Amino acid sequence: MRIGFIGLGSMGVGMSANLIKGGHEVTVWNRTASVAEPLKAQGAKVAASPAEAVQGAEVVHNMLANDAAVREVILGSVLPVLAEGTIHVNHATISVALAQELAETHKARGVGFVSAPVFGRPEVAAAGQLNLLASGAPADVARVQPLLELLAAKVWPMGDDPIRAVVVKIGGNFLIGAAIESMAEAAALTRAHGVDAKDFLEVMQNTLFPAPVYKIYGGMIAADRYEPAGFKLSLGFKDVGLARAAAETKRVPMPVASVLHDAMLESLNRGDGDLDWAGLARVAAARANLKG
Amino acid sequence: MRIGFIGLGSMGVGMSANLIKGGHEVTVWNRTASVAEPLKAQGAKVAASPAEAVQGAEVVHNMLANDAAVREVILGSVLPVLAEGTIHVNHATISVALAQELAETHKARGVGFVSAPVFGRPEVAAAGQLNLLASGAPADVARVQPLLELLAAKVWPMGDDPIRAVVVKIGGNFLIGAAIESMAEAAALTRAHGVDAKDFLEVMQNTLFPAPVYKIYGGMIAADRYEPAGFKLSLGFKDVGLARAAAETKRVPMPVASVLHDAMLESLNRGDGDLDWAGLARVAAARANLKG
Amino acid sequence: MRIGFIGLGSMGVGMSANLIKGGHEVTVWNRTASVAEPLKAQGAKVAASPAEAVQGAEVVHNMLANDAAVREVILGSVLPVLAEGTIHVNHATISVALAQELAETHKARGVGFVSAPVFGRPEVAAAGQLNLLASGAPADVARVQPLLELLAAKVWPMGDDPIRAVVVKIGGNFLIGAAIESMAEAAALTRAHGVDAKDFLEVMQNTLFPAPVYKIYGGMIAADRYEPAGFKLSLGFKDVGLARAAAETKRVPMPVASVLHDAMLESLNRGDGDLDWAGLARVAAARANLKG
Amino acid sequence: MRIGFIGLGSMGVGMSANLIKGGHEVTVWNRTASVAEPLKAQGAKVAASPAEAVQGAEVVHNMLANDAAVREVILGSVLPVLAEGTIHVNHATISVALAQELAETHKARGVGFVSAPVFGRPEVAAAGQLNLLASGAPADVARVQPLLELLAAKVWPMGDDPIRAVVVKIGGNFLIGAAIESMAEAAALTRAHGVDAKDFLEVMQNTLFPAPVYKIYGGMIAADRYEPAGFKLSLGFKDVGLARAAAETKRVPMPVASVLHDAMLESLNRGDGDLDWAGLARVAAARANLKG
Repeated sequence: MRIGFIGLGSMGVGMSANLIKGGHEVTVWNRTASVAEPLKAQGAKVAASPAEAVQGAEVVHNMLANDAAVREVILGSVLPVLAEGTIHVNHATISVALAQELAETHKARGVGFVSAPVFGRPEVAAAGQLNLLASGAPADVARVQPLLELLAAKVWPMGDDPIRAVVVKIGGNFLIGAAIESMAEAAALTRAHGVDAKDFLEVMQNTLFPAPVYKIYGGMIAADRYEPAGFKLSLGFKDVGLARAAAETKRVPMPVASVLHDAMLESLNRGDGDLDWAGLARVAAARANLKG
Repeated sequence: MRIGFIGLGSMGVGMSANLIKGGHEVTVWNRTASVAEPLKAQGAKVAASPAEAVQGAEVVHNMLANDAAVREVILGSVLPVLAEGTIHVNHATISVALAQELAETHKARGVGFVSAPVFGRPEVAAAGQLNLLASGAPADVARVQPLLELLAAKVWPMGDDPIRAVVVKIGGNFLIGAAIESMAEAAALTRAHGVDAKDFLEVMQNTLFPAPVYKIYGGMIAADRYEPAGFKLSLGFKDVGLARAAAETKRVPMPVASVLHDAMLESLNRGDGDLDWAGLARVAAARANLKG
Repeated sequence: MRIGFIGLGSMGVGMSANLIKGGHEVTVWNRTASVAEPLKAQGAKVAASPAEAVQGAEVVHNMLANDAAVREVILGSVLPVLAEGTIHVNHATISVALAQELAETHKARGVGFVSAPVFGRPEVAAAGQLNLLASGAPADVARVQPLLELLAAKVWPMGDDPIRAVVVKIGGNFLIGAAIESMAEAAALTRAHGVDAKDFLEVMQNTLFPAPVYKIYGGMIAADRYEPAGFKLSLGFKDVGLARAAAETKRVPMPVASVLHDAMLESLNRGDGDLDWAGLARVAAARANLKG
Repeated sequence: MRIGFIGLGSMGVGMSANLIKGGHEVTVWNRTASVAEPLKAQGAKVAASPAEAVQGAEVVHNMLANDAAVREVILGSVLPVLAEGTIHVNHATISVALAQELAETHKARGVGFVSAPVFGRPEVAAAGQLNLLASGAPADVARVQPLLELLAAKVWPMGDDPIRAVVVKIGGNFLIGAAIESMAEAAALTRAHGVDAKDFLEVMQNTLFPAPVYKIYGGMIAADRYEPAGFKLSLGFKDVGLARAAAETKRVPMPVASVLHDAMLESLNRGDGDLDWAGLARVAAARANLKG
């Protein structure tokens, strides 16, 4: 298929490469054009603008950074030029409110809209092993299903409404943040009683919590090393904000999200926004007067 | 070896049976004697009192319910009659403060003291597949190691100080409670946006969180069924209290533990203390005005 | 002076009347025109549109409900038609972000902008006894000072920057909400131990806290009566949201504001949004299993 | 009357002096005897032990520091030697649990027990202008009423049960702590937006909150000066602990108390335990990255 791919951050690069490897004709666009160079060698066309990238495309993917970027690029430049019948697949983690707005604006333009947020870090994206949530009109999802399978170890069907996949993604990121904060507090507790974070978290990772989230982030907390960042604290803060906004809309009290928010503000104030978001653990340690 | 085993609750029954199966001479005691009957058939002697149960024992295990029971039975009846050189293995989840006190009183009496709290629910205990944390004087731990291995899939050595295993156990139980509360809030969020708890949690259990805690408790939350209880909410409340007390002693702020505490009080007020502690999820749902 | 007054809610009615009594030529506008009738008898002209209300005015006041209304009416209809040199006095409780935006747009149009939020309930506004915070360019504030004094028992000068009065107003409303939640929790505590809220709060009001906030809201909590509402819970929720937004912008962790937010969501879920915001106390009572 | 007065801290000194001035025969005891010297000049007898201090007394007052001191001195040394019919007046801020225990032990010994905790700082105690809460058997309260009036601007009758005055005192101290934390957060918010704590709090103290608690503690926060301490943070921490314990017993969730607890732990970790408890404001400022 002819595919336009918008947004080549650390995730988008690997994802678009997998679409190319799958035999598709992919035109890419990124604000910083240099990032696209390696993809050219793999067979991508590189467009000079978002509108050019999606010209003639049957399916348009985006992996942009946040609501503002999606709003500017997709609503501003892409959607107005898409031909009726095109399908737009959004991989970015966006707000429930924007997902709702996109669903409506796409429908009005006769363009299909599939929500397809992903779980997985850059190396997982490059390996085509993401966990991908997909929701949207069944016919649209079915049509892009082969593309999604090129990106994912598993595609999780989440139903007809595009906001469904979005809210599951947001809920999942909240759970990651909550696990980080919980490990941080528990590790501060054991450290204060003379048990190293490493000794404690190793037991946890191998008994109650043998799961990627506890292994990856717990490993960083155990080593007190948060660089290089797989996912930056400043982005985690944004995602907790998406959970809080979605909660407020439907009046869902989330006191752990409130705790996370306040701790993350403190973390940003420490200057830790560019650390991996496991670096949030430094706040719990500092509050307990434990050395970093 | 000649073993005294004190406390035959849902965990102790299976644990003492595994010691018998291992070829040891086990005398058991339980406040409600009838519980001991099945063990008699397996070869246990049944004592009429704690003191009788530990007479002539080389090693004494206890799996009592809480600080009060350990204080009464062990400090009150058992320790005074133990011969010098006996080793006492405590499996109960007790406070750091009591562990410290036990370490001192045992030392003064020339009795060995091994902290050996466990992770695992009753069926895991019966199968001899617990995760067991062990700390204490190396010679004492070494001597009871074969016994511990009869109880556990793995024995995790936690060092010389008996309080070390205790604080790791307490930290672990806090992490379970925090995961329950976090899942409860996240599920309330997705439900409020039209995604069933089951649909959300199934993705979580199979992607980010393929761990027993998320599977077992997440499964209960997904089904909104909390009976029969594997671990009662009232006991979970007690254990979060142990974490909070241990945190206060060393001045460790634990805001997620505070959130848990307040939610659990509300849960007890709802009359949910005998539910499995995953039943805490009902509080988050009620606060969000979602039907149970 | 010739004054345009926009927004005749329960506060604006009394405030505009006091400007008329002060001898000024006041033209009023309100979305629901009938509200303006009594003011006509007192000498007001009633305009058919915001633009008409401010035509020829030297000073324009508004007491609109929230950001959305100010944005629509002031930015949409009023500011474009104001003559250079006019001064706009904003009494509405708005966000820091909107105050900043208003400051800039007014400056660009050559219109003066004075932030003048007020503390006080409708009967206090009618009596001209508000506490009024004023910030803005000194010359502008000086020019409207005689008008402000007609409205207020005291005008509190807050400096040159229009956002200063706004942030003080927002901080004050947060403090009121925090006092309500604190009284609610404390009263639940004493009630659970057999001391009526009334007995407890009466002591507080007459010893440690002989202040209007504790008297008015404490009185409502003591009587468990929240109607008629002096200030609705739904509006209080909005104002706590302004505090939280202003805090997030500058990365100020406010855990008490987080507690307030979560309790207020629960309160709205109970259907209590139209009660006076002291009705938030019902949440603390319900959580503690105390009857309303 | 013949009075024994136990405990001459900064409060007890002034209180016992007022009983002497009232014409009573007062024998005092304090652990550090030197403190009693000035009282000797005013007419007090100084006892060498608590038992000696209460010998022949009709009424015994104590103003000891905490549960541990009351338990040791009153239950350990005083109660066993009191003659039947004596009345014991407890001014110390103690736990609800200990108040309950004292009520029972006194009753069993035929000794009257009046709970009489006070609000007021040392200079207020010296001036005999405390607010004093009194609960106990009506006949006992009536008999000591003239003594209480020597100590207080007002005696607040709180009913028959001695725990009633205690729980009101504890609830009141929680409200003070909550007001401090709330002011601290609000001041951090305004400071982050360029408004000094002083400018903000001065408005609050003179408009919404013209109450001693906001004036005294708000004044300290405005000046960022917390010495000399009128009431130490470490003592405030103890009192918040009394509220939390009383809340737990009756299952009253108090999320603001949880926030206070966690902030106070952090404050103690900063080394601020000997500051006035308004010094808690430093935590909110530090979390927001504002200089002290």
